[in-house]
Amino acid sequence: MTVTSTMMDDFQLTVQNMFWHGARVHAEHEVVTWHGESATRRTFAETAERAIRLTNALADLGVEQGDVVATFAWNNQQHAEAYLGVPCMGAVLHTLNIRLFPDQLDYVIRDGGDKVIIVDDSLVPLLARVKDTLEVVDHIVVVGDGDASALGRDVLRYEELIADASPEADWPDVAESDPCTMCYTSGTTGNPKGVVYSHRSQWTHTFGASTGGLGVGTGDRLLMIVPQFHANAWGLIYLSWIMGMDVLQPDRFLQPEPLAAFIAAERPTFAAAVPTVFNGLLQYGQAVDIDLSTITACVIGGSAVPRSLIDAFHERYDIDVVQGWGMTEMSPLGTVGLPPSPSMDWHEGAEYRAKAGRIVPGVEMRIIGEDGEELAWDGDAQGEVEVRGSWITAGYHGLDEDTDDKFHDGWLRTGDVGVIEPGGYLVIKDRAKDVIKSGGEWISSVDLENEIMAHDKVVEAAVIGVPDEKWDERPLACVVVADGEEVSPAELVAFLEGRVASWWLPERWTFVDEIPKTSVGKFDKKVLRGDNDEGRLEIAVVD
Amino acid sequence: MTVTSTMMDDFQLTVQNMFWHGARVHAEHEVVTWHGESATRRTFAETAERAIRLTNALADLGVEQGDVVATFAWNNQQHAEAYLGVPCMGAVLHTLNIRLFPDQLDYVIRDGGDKVIIVDDSLVPLLARVKDTLEVVDHIVVVGDGDASALGRDVLRYEELIADASPEADWPDVAESDPCTMCYTSGTTGNPKGVVYSHRSQWTHTFGASTGGLGVGTGDRLLMIVPQFHANAWGLIYLSWIMGMDVLQPDRFLQPEPLAAFIAAERPTFAAAVPTVFNGLLQYGQAVDIDLSTITACVIGGSAVPRSLIDAFHERYDIDVVQGWGMTEMSPLGTVGLPPSPSMDWHEGAEYRAKAGRIVPGVEMRIIGEDGEELAWDGDAQGEVEVRGSWITAGYHGLDEDTDDKFHDGWLRTGDVGVIEPGGYLVIKDRAKDVIKSGGEWISSVDLENEIMAHDKVVEAAVIGVPDEKWDERPLACVVVADGEEVSPAELVAFLEGRVASWWLPERWTFVDEIPKTSVGKFDKKVLRGDNDEGRLEIAVVD
Repeated sequence: MTVTSTMMDDFQLTVQNMFWHGARVHAEHEVVTWHGESATRRTFAETAERAIRLTNALADLGVEQGDVVATFAWNNQQHAEAYLGVPCMGAVLHTLNIRLFPDQLDYVIRDGGDKVIIVDDSLVPLLARVKDTLEVVDHIVVVGDGDASALGRDVLRYEELIADASPEADWPDVAESDPCTMCYTSGTTGNPKGVVYSHRSQWTHTFGASTGGLGVGTGDRLLMIVPQFHANAWGLIYLSWIMGMDVLQPDRFLQPEPLAAFIAAERPTFAAAVPTVFNGLLQYGQAVDIDLSTITACVIGGSAVPRSLIDAFHERYDIDVVQGWGMTEMSPLGTVGLPPSPSMDWHEGAEYRAKAGRIVPGVEMRIIGEDGEELAWDGDAQGEVEVRGSWITAGYHGLDEDTDDKFHDGWLRTGDVGVIEPGGYLVIKDRAKDVIKSGGEWISSVDLENEIMAHDKVVEAAVIGVPDEKWDERPLACVVVADGEEVSPAELVAFLEGRVASWWLPERWTFVDEIPKTSVGKFDKKVLRGDNDEGRLEIAVVD
Repeated sequence: MTVTSTMMDDFQLTVQNMFWHGARVHAEHEVVTWHGESATRRTFAETAERAIRLTNALADLGVEQGDVVATFAWNNQQHAEAYLGVPCMGAVLHTLNIRLFPDQLDYVIRDGGDKVIIVDDSLVPLLARVKDTLEVVDHIVVVGDGDASALGRDVLRYEELIADASPEADWPDVAESDPCTMCYTSGTTGNPKGVVYSHRSQWTHTFGASTGGLGVGTGDRLLMIVPQFHANAWGLIYLSWIMGMDVLQPDRFLQPEPLAAFIAAERPTFAAAVPTVFNGLLQYGQAVDIDLSTITACVIGGSAVPRSLIDAFHERYDIDVVQGWGMTEMSPLGTVGLPPSPSMDWHEGAEYRAKAGRIVPGVEMRIIGEDGEELAWDGDAQGEVEVRGSWITAGYHGLDEDTDDKFHDGWLRTGDVGVIEPGGYLVIKDRAKDVIKSGGEWISSVDLENEIMAHDKVVEAAVIGVPDEKWDERPLACVVVADGEEVSPAELVAFLEGRVASWWLPERWTFVDEIPKTSVGKFDKKVLRGDNDEGRLEIAVVD
């Protein structure tokens, strides 16, 4: 005899399902937006009604299921409303990265097929840089009443638009595999590539992020520093919404002074941040007395957090750093760096906090060696990290054939090289394209950079591989020295001795004014490599 | 332009996915089984290997995809292995309730189509009561080496079976809508009805239970008192597995003395219990000094926990009670009774702990009035609770047509009557069939029972509706008086005055030796009603 499921297996896992939960169950929670000295606050019930009004206004403008509505915005009330409303009407939210270079922005607006762009008035000048591109967009909706004349066309005003719209939801049924939101990768090589999340991926990612244990929960007040245009806002809009966490939005006030004022006024319990902004806050706090006492933990992603910063936050502010690792293609969460037990002693636990993190349930992960075989989780065997799961991308928008090298038997190749320790903790060693292959062994450019940056006189260091007759490839260290300081290659080599394996020690050194960065603030090694190929880097050699 | 999802939307949400996560990421966690004075412990890695061996052994016995493998067992190591292994091989785990009456057990074994039964040696005598039924079962596998001759047939021994089987998983691909596990309702009316969970329902329920915030997390040690044969074990096997919580299994040692010894030896941090067992522990603790100091919280479900018990656990043992509400048809979780903020003062928070709980994300809920319309979430409007979602049943095994009255436009009618308060807290007022409709108004039999049981001399009280010429229906109170005590109906009416509305005060009273109970320990009002119809209850009337 064979039995069959009696469950509601056709119940669709959608943002609509999450929308109604937060709107009704957590109606009293709030979204708070900072204006530099004061805040606007709206309950989830009010936010939900405004999101519904937005969907009706957009429908009146001709937006239909599957159409793309873009945002060009800071973290604020209206941006949250777009996250909630646009998917519920069956349209697709495309969060434009405001830091894209104009040619990239032009590309993604056209490639995404954006029909409407919602733009903050404070960002109109930035968007106006691609004024000609906007001819392909039907409507521009400006948040705020600031000057929009730089766009050279008629615009709609967000608040007027939603004030006139119905507060009753009139949404089509959406299927869980329908498109929902859309984000472009930062594109360190070639054009940015579009990732289109489905309702199903957002639903499972949100529940997975909770189960993966970021450590946030009902009643928390989340300081949302990570940009909403960055990798699906780490899923935090939907997570806050269904778990009942207040969302504190800093808008454009990310400088240490107004941010500290926001924190003092609104008393977040938890922060989500990129290292640069939080590091800025820490520096500022050395000069000025700031009150971070309400914040118990901070989830940081986007780039690795050094142990020294983890310790500094704990010791000076009693803030526990939680690292997350992932990427736009992963919605983005793949690992969370919590200790295996909450009762673990701080110093022991901090070892775990310094890793990329532990695999989140729902994500399947493996590491693949150079000859294509799966490697052991022994903390030693190093290979490319591959992932699969319901919130991992299987391709890129409009690029069916060009991206075969990004996938491997149904798994996403992350392009990161790492080891997995027993217990499922991932440690990232390098980007696959940055790893240096010297005499058949791998040198981690990231580890080497961290050790060089541990020198007092070094501000930044990037290491790239350069061709070598004997070893195939050897490291070239590109160093930025602190203002008014001097340091010789020989001095740095001496400093590194004992800190890294002797065969890692770079012979080639170059000193630069700054390390070139991508639009999301990562070291742009492509430029360094180009500069080297073109002979623009002056290289000193040390034996 | 219309975009489509780029995600791995065909990645299947299955128990296999959860299995590999726990087996690899939480390999060091453990399942501990109590033997009364000592324990057996197996890591998740060992448990996973044993579960794989079980699947290979079952396959050798002829078990195929969609076949039903039943358990008749206490909470122990082997039962956990069956939960993990059987679904992964594409078969269906049917957890038989060991407290079923023989005719019910006969019915569910035949109706479920059980091909194999795994039975604890200590339960052989109970299973032998349906010896003839077992002729339809291909194989009986006995856990332990105790006497099994009462079954009157050849049996296999669990440990021998798995010792001989391969430790390599050789499982078919399973689809998320494939059947996975199976549980029968307790059947207070008619035959028990089978609910068949799918892989998708188990996956989403597990992640939903975590997100719904039972308050458990990685590193907890879970004392698993709730029987694994009870309502899908509340999903706790899978939840522990993917979150990394040790599972402490009391086997058959549920009496206060050995249970207290287990707790003292194994130091759980969290307990999952039915009220009777935990209440027994509390009573025992009044006479004997017991150490419950490691337990910080206890999730209780199955029947409502009175505020007095919640306060007693907090004050005497510093254990916070968390109620859950749901049913077999709901996998079972629908609500969790945590306060809206973890920082809330105890006394204020305890008000929330005394409710059925807050709606879990993923579950959609509504209350429907007598005329079929949806009622407001105002804490006042009272109606039948209806739910839908990915882990809610849409029907019953083999009963396509007979159960239309259980569903309403795609929603499951829970048969519970309640109110929803602002904030999504459900308060259950009654079973729909037990509510008393007096002069067009509803009297909650549950509220009335609780008020009567608050009287010192009353041990138990059940209230049923009886026909009344003037009011259509009026309450009849059935009371069990404490040993050696006497109390008159007039005295009880006087006690109730001011505690309930005056028109709730029962005129009809009857005194009984005990309230009849169902196989899962709930008041069996069907029997009381029958006794009343047949004139077996002696009724005193008070004006």
